[in-house]
Amino acid sequence: MELLEKRATSEMGYVGKPLPRIVDGFEKVSGRAEYIFDMELPGMLYGVILRSEVPHGVIRELDYSSLQKYDFVKAVISGRDVELGNIGPLRDQPVLKYPKVRSTLDEVLAVAATDADKALRVLDEVRVSYEPLAPVFDPEEALRPEAPLIHEENGSNLVKLNFDFSSGGVDRVFEGAPYVREDTYDVPRVAFAPMGTLGAISYLDPSGNLVLASNTQEPFQLKRELAEALRLNPQRVRVFQPYVGGNFGRGMDLYPFEVVACALTLRTRRPVKILYTRTDDFRYSPTRQPARIRLKSATTKDGRLMARRAEVALDAGAYVSWGVFDARVMASTVTGLYRVGEVEFKARAAYTNNPYTINMRGAGNPQMTFALESHMDSMAHELGIDPVEFRLINAYEGDYTTPQGMKAKDARLRSVIGRCAELIGWRGVHSLEPKGSKRYGVGFAALFHVGGGARVYRTDGAGALIKIDDFGTVTLYIGMSEMGQGTVNSLAQIVATELGVPVDWVRVEYNGDVEGRPWDTATHASRSTFVCGNAALLAARKLKRELLRAASKTLNVKTSELYIEGGVVKSRSKEVEIALDKLVRRTHFKDNGKVFIAYAYYDTKTEMLDSQNKGNISAAYVNAAQAALVEVDTETGEVRVLRVVSVHDIGQPINPLGVRGQIVGGVVQGLGHALYEELVLDRGSVVTAGFGDYEVPSVGEMPEIQVDFLPTKDRYGPFGARGVAENGIIPIAAAIANAVYDATGVRITSLPIKRERVLKGLLKDVGG
Amino acid sequence: MELLEKRATSEMGYVGKPLPRIVDGFEKVSGRAEYIFDMELPGMLYGVILRSEVPHGVIRELDYSSLQKYDFVKAVISGRDVELGNIGPLRDQPVLKYPKVRSTLDEVLAVAATDADKALRVLDEVRVSYEPLAPVFDPEEALRPEAPLIHEENGSNLVKLNFDFSSGGVDRVFEGAPYVREDTYDVPRVAFAPMGTLGAISYLDPSGNLVLASNTQEPFQLKRELAEALRLNPQRVRVFQPYVGGNFGRGMDLYPFEVVACALTLRTRRPVKILYTRTDDFRYSPTRQPARIRLKSATTKDGRLMARRAEVALDAGAYVSWGVFDARVMASTVTGLYRVGEVEFKARAAYTNNPYTINMRGAGNPQMTFALESHMDSMAHELGIDPVEFRLINAYEGDYTTPQGMKAKDARLRSVIGRCAELIGWRGVHSLEPKGSKRYGVGFAALFHVGGGARVYRTDGAGALIKIDDFGTVTLYIGMSEMGQGTVNSLAQIVATELGVPVDWVRVEYNGDVEGRPWDTATHASRSTFVCGNAALLAARKLKRELLRAASKTLNVKTSELYIEGGVVKSRSKEVEIALDKLVRRTHFKDNGKVFIAYAYYDTKTEMLDSQNKGNISAAYVNAAQAALVEVDTETGEVRVLRVVSVHDIGQPINPLGVRGQIVGGVVQGLGHALYEELVLDRGSVVTAGFGDYEVPSVGEMPEIQVDFLPTKDRYGPFGARGVAENGIIPIAAAIANAVYDATGVRITSLPIKRERVLKGLLKDVGG
Repeated sequence: MELLEKRATSEMGYVGKPLPRIVDGFEKVSGRAEYIFDMELPGMLYGVILRSEVPHGVIRELDYSSLQKYDFVKAVISGRDVELGNIGPLRDQPVLKYPKVRSTLDEVLAVAATDADKALRVLDEVRVSYEPLAPVFDPEEALRPEAPLIHEENGSNLVKLNFDFSSGGVDRVFEGAPYVREDTYDVPRVAFAPMGTLGAISYLDPSGNLVLASNTQEPFQLKRELAEALRLNPQRVRVFQPYVGGNFGRGMDLYPFEVVACALTLRTRRPVKILYTRTDDFRYSPTRQPARIRLKSATTKDGRLMARRAEVALDAGAYVSWGVFDARVMASTVTGLYRVGEVEFKARAAYTNNPYTINMRGAGNPQMTFALESHMDSMAHELGIDPVEFRLINAYEGDYTTPQGMKAKDARLRSVIGRCAELIGWRGVHSLEPKGSKRYGVGFAALFHVGGGARVYRTDGAGALIKIDDFGTVTLYIGMSEMGQGTVNSLAQIVATELGVPVDWVRVEYNGDVEGRPWDTATHASRSTFVCGNAALLAARKLKRELLRAASKTLNVKTSELYIEGGVVKSRSKEVEIALDKLVRRTHFKDNGKVFIAYAYYDTKTEMLDSQNKGNISAAYVNAAQAALVEVDTETGEVRVLRVVSVHDIGQPINPLGVRGQIVGGVVQGLGHALYEELVLDRGSVVTAGFGDYEVPSVGEMPEIQVDFLPTKDRYGPFGARGVAENGIIPIAAAIANAVYDATGVRITSLPIKRERVLKGLLKDVGG
Repeated sequence: MELLEKRATSEMGYVGKPLPRIVDGFEKVSGRAEYIFDMELPGMLYGVILRSEVPHGVIRELDYSSLQKYDFVKAVISGRDVELGNIGPLRDQPVLKYPKVRSTLDEVLAVAATDADKALRVLDEVRVSYEPLAPVFDPEEALRPEAPLIHEENGSNLVKLNFDFSSGGVDRVFEGAPYVREDTYDVPRVAFAPMGTLGAISYLDPSGNLVLASNTQEPFQLKRELAEALRLNPQRVRVFQPYVGGNFGRGMDLYPFEVVACALTLRTRRPVKILYTRTDDFRYSPTRQPARIRLKSATTKDGRLMARRAEVALDAGAYVSWGVFDARVMASTVTGLYRVGEVEFKARAAYTNNPYTINMRGAGNPQMTFALESHMDSMAHELGIDPVEFRLINAYEGDYTTPQGMKAKDARLRSVIGRCAELIGWRGVHSLEPKGSKRYGVGFAALFHVGGGARVYRTDGAGALIKIDDFGTVTLYIGMSEMGQGTVNSLAQIVATELGVPVDWVRVEYNGDVEGRPWDTATHASRSTFVCGNAALLAARKLKRELLRAASKTLNVKTSELYIEGGVVKSRSKEVEIALDKLVRRTHFKDNGKVFIAYAYYDTKTEMLDSQNKGNISAAYVNAAQAALVEVDTETGEVRVLRVVSVHDIGQPINPLGVRGQIVGGVVQGLGHALYEELVLDRGSVVTAGFGDYEVPSVGEMPEIQVDFLPTKDRYGPFGARGVAENGIIPIAAAIANAVYDATGVRITSLPIKRERVLKGLLKDVGG
């Protein structure tokens, strides 16, 4: 489906205009937007959860009879009493764990009470005794034959998921290659730490259907998952999506506590709210996927990549959620970032007694790009080739199909790298002289990512309904999840541009009652502007066609000679016009009248990965390059990022201000992962459970960030746009690590780039 | 638009099946449905209103400075301080009255407070002094030249609305007619007294738009009216329609107190609730339209109607709402009930200092049918013709166009009268012998009413959106207002039948946020099953077409050979089938997939009344006949209705149980108006302000009610259905009055048929 119409720049309307958040800005800054945190329902109970005291064990005794005496306790449930289905992509996670527990996140018992604080206090009175089992916390240890089994029924701790890919000839190339290098990288467990902590409210609607108010980013799929877990007819289950205070991927799976809330509602027939405190959020949330990544590459003498192999060890934690699926995206970067003839990707994920993992912004790509672009940098230095030059040698440009079969059209990998080097002022060496103990360096990294949806489910579609009322108000109904990314504003710009109406005539109905909106697979994989944007564009185009047809009759001018501008239908051939709202009223307020509503469903023509993990999963791919200028204090080991240049080939930005916000947000989030963030576990339990222990970047750490776009248009994206949401975060850690190397000669292979790691590297250099 | 497809009875599915209220039954009987009464919003204030102490006057002093000292008072507004637009069809009613007051309903001042009771108490501290003006309470007096003017600017108390009609030759016929009779009837002011008292809540949505939660039955029009009154851009005004506890027509207009609530919200930025107590509801609500009706008819010697003239005097009250428009419906009965060659209708409405009036169920038809069918009965008796026979002589059958140009297709007026006489066992005389002081009598009355919408606005349309999800759930989105009439259930049956799915797969999204639903003009004039039913049917038909097209591809069978039964697509030619939900999933979960949503908009091809008040305003008309068997105690004057037979030509009942409910409800409501109900005014103020003083029928007064339908199908209605909501109430008062005459020879010309009126009649007889 060719969506991009040829347009003069003058016909681009609001597309490309940097507008503030016209749709969701006011409601958020005014405090009027109601998040789970704010929601209170009449008769609402508060759910609290008792979790396992041991990382691995069997419950031998569970006695909560002492809670019966409290009036404020309205229900108590445990895995012993309720029959609930397992959750997670592999359905390996019981909602309430009994008798086996596999991590200290494990939900053992839940109480619904009229007062959350009182309920929390009486949890101590529950008698639980565990028979401890030997735990395992290291994923590589977990795969040894003698390791204790987390899920006995599997006979092994190996997660049965296969994202491996091989072009076939890697070994052969390595044998004869003139240059081969191997490196190992570690990416730690990090927290999502969004503004909104986890929470949900379940209740019965007036018809007795179960409703879950959830911070989900996949509300349509959640409905099915929830119904299955609760063993309810999905026709009787509804999802309500309030304003969401950031998700970054952790809204892609159903949570045990969400099912627990529902079970308590079904027990009590009352609304039940479960809200995580910030400490809970750190301790009991799934984390980003940690990884150990081994990379081996071969090049010709002049630096042309001949082969690449990646071996990844993943720690799934106690259950499989989407974290392990990060391997799929890692594979696409291993095969797709730079031109590599022969390539092999292997991932092994192991169950451990650690917190389970879920996919976070970039979904494996930030981890793999850190490893791959560090590795590329090391090769460049070892080969004595300028790191920018080395990348340019191996970058593709134009149409390019990766070994996995991903078809990048009009790729601009070479251009983004070149432009990035130009903007940061790279001339083969960094330009700043040392000052005292301060050293300065510049590092580069590029990315390959999906930008036109990602067919990781059988559907990658989105619907859009659009209506225009008698006052000219255009209302767009979408299933897309807005969780802060701001896509609703871009959609308003797309619709206003297509229809030719002032953008403040456009209202977007989003989130809220999911039943009231057309299907959308999920907000993930940077897909919403591309996929939902196309749906909105198609719906607006249909509506425009109907409006012009009506105007044609009214004005007695051929439809082909009519266009809409500023909310007025105008003619190219005659001196006639009619205001759109007037046209609508005239078509509506008469006998046999009409009110226009248009619907479009957009799904990409893409493929799921096949059994060989090959397939063109996206309708568009993006490249970007980032450069970081850092200052390293050789006395303290402290790294400060002074400047970041971020150059993107994302087609036509719909709202450059919004896109810039997404990129800057990603850079800053990635900067945290690069320099500070690491969840510290003690026997499977998070000990860095608060912003005091777990450092995220604050305003003092902000670098100057320059965002630049190549002037391109995607051939399938709405008005030529591609996705961008994850691009900022992906290359930044590698760029910073490479800059640190440039500044100091210290190669950091384990994130975060803590002072002690830099100092240790500097001492080794001194010592060596 | 020919909507009725030829169907075998076996293909009628759920149509004609007496189902319980599958859509809105549970939510209502379980108490889960949230009415205005139940709604509480965070930070909500309560609005209370100070009304005029005098029925007519000028405010000379208004001082509310003493309220400033109370913390709980958050805002005070009066007509002196706020600029609001007038409301009502003629825009003759200020929202807050200043300086002139015209009735004791008049809103002078409003307070928003954190506590309603405290606010009510401090209203006494407001100092208001009035210069009283001479009031006028009788509409005929109000039209005398010396009468005080209610709206000075009009120069007269005559309401400038014209519903008069004349076929031209009435006077000529009266001059030469062999038989002429004149009668005068009085129909009093009655209360609506639904379960839910008046109330509204205004608030700001997260985007800062003003929302009014209103018991309206015309939410789409209300938006425009509200925006105009508040002088806001309609794009910033929304309407939320909660569950409505009965309206019976009084939800057709914007209320002053609704605008007051909004003004208080705009002042305080907080939600404001105004809720009428039962006493308020009696004292400060608009009432049904009272009328004095003069009828004059001429017949041939053998009882053929030659001419008819009606002159109606209406009391508008202080302002014009829709009550005065009852004249329009009265005219259609004067011209359309029975075949009358020459006919004339004249109505004069006057402003008075009484409560203003709004249209109630039947909208003038119950009042006019009481008069006309009493008058017919008197003529029959005077002419010595059996009253059933007299009606049959003058009844039409088949296609009939009334003098006003209303085109009744396949009319069955003669059939309903005949069938009614048969069912009540009429053999020319009543069959029960007197017992002691008890006398028994049977009376008849018929009706003519719209049954296919009514073009009283420029649009008479309704939209319907329909989707089917991956579980087979079919969701219908309608703009139709459900206020207890139960149409949502019929719509589910229509959709389930058309689609061939189990009816419990169908969910109807109704009321609630109006923006989320397609336009519907209003629920009034018995139009919702016909108009919205057709929209739902058309939308379901579109959806079915798309589903069968998809199934055709999947099953490799021609679309024309496929049909859907029990949620399964089946083939007439091959042994193949596919469950609908599976088909939806298969069409959805693939590359370039689809999710089906269909939209239809239905508007009738009808005409508004022209300047001569001629026009075919409805796509269908209905006839019905009712017979009442009464017992009159000649010692006490008490009338008991023992049995009612109600025979209807309403095409195909979609849900006979629901239709029966509507008819029985109407009969009982009309029985109250016939026997008990009358609002007593003292200088324009309601004194019967509670169910202690104002009698409505209770279970002890229930007659046995037999409802019967002629086996007909309307050619344009959904599955052959016509509207029925108002039919039960229209003829019942006349049937009872005629039965009282049959039992006792006492002719009651003023409703209600109170004991003293019957006794007075009996005494006159004795005396005479």
